[in-house]
Amino acid sequence: MLSKHLWKTLSSKMILDHSKYLMVENRTIQLPDGRVIENWPWVVTPDFVNVVAVAVDGRFLCFRQTKYALSGLSLALVGGFIDKGESPIQAVKRELLEETGYEAPEWVDLGSFRVDPNRGMAIGNLFLARGAVQVAKPTSDDLEEQELLMLSRNDIETALDRGEFKVLAWATAVALALRHMQAKCP
Amino acid sequence: MLSKHLWKTLSSKMILDHSKYLMVENRTIQLPDGRVIENWPWVVTPDFVNVVAVAVDGRFLCFRQTKYALSGLSLALVGGFIDKGESPIQAVKRELLEETGYEAPEWVDLGSFRVDPNRGMAIGNLFLARGAVQVAKPTSDDLEEQELLMLSRNDIETALDRGEFKVLAWATAVALALRHMQAKCP
Repeated sequence: MLSKHLWKTLSSKMILDHSKYLMVENRTIQLPDGRVIENWPWVVTPDFVNVVAVAVDGRFLCFRQTKYALSGLSLALVGGFIDKGESPIQAVKRELLEETGYEAPEWVDLGSFRVDPNRGMAIGNLFLARGAVQVAKPTSDDLEEQELLMLSRNDIETALDRGEFKVLAWATAVALALRHMQAKCP
Repeated sequence: MLSKHLWKTLSSKMILDHSKYLMVENRTIQLPDGRVIENWPWVVTPDFVNVVAVAVDGRFLCFRQTKYALSGLSLALVGGFIDKGESPIQAVKRELLEETGYEAPEWVDLGSFRVDPNRGMAIGNLFLARGAVQVAKPTSDDLEEQELLMLSRNDIETALDRGEFKVLAWATAVALALRHMQAKCP
């Protein structure tokens, strides 16, 4: 789906190979109108998944956690990087099981979105999972101190509107999931 | 608002100073539980603004454009980087005027969100503007070929649900703006 680029890449040189979490290339690109631009930075970070998981009782699985780039506590979603060879749906089911011990029978693809329209970075793949039930204990080795919360529909709506999901991908996924679940007015 | 970090930065070294669009630091950080992690990449890209602008006739100002990191055409929002010394609201009013020639009397702050919870990158500041009227011609010098569209409410809802806003910040802003404008069921 994200394969056809109307801008052309004329040349590319790796200028920072930090780790699997970050590589930077310096590119020369050509605009659709023919202009050439040099020194265009292209950033590669791992593609990731996030899921708004709703348990059989209708409550939403969220984390309250700290992250390095965030001030104070944030509400967060289940998610993580896509491992080599995995599809987004495989990755998100693995992350849900690892981080919460839950599995879900019903999955909705909420879309795939670029983090940065110019410098690239990752693609975030967002999902809604419904009917989730706990089948195991969490086995996550994430760095974060995190607390699993079961939020009511009203609580998660309020949290979204108050900006308590402090990261773009999390706010996007929650907003799109709530749209999907929205009851039409009679 | 984004000033208090529960994780500590023990040291930081610039490893890539590409341009005003991209700097990378290598940091040593300490988790809240005391563990120390070395070689933590910290990426600095410029903070930005986006706005869902609604004209007096109720139509939504969007662009159809190509971007280097996107495949094919995408719907996009008015937006851009915050200039030095500007507040987010000053930046977004400037961008709206430059890119479309419109001004608006009513502004809603839809929130500020981190691009990446681990490596930082930018903070995106999202707005809704209502009652927009054209007062000038656009003066933007953006690189993109872009076409200004005036979408109906129904068209923008459909475009969001079809994934036609291909960037996280744009999808977030549209979803949050539509939530804000949502009529409650009687």
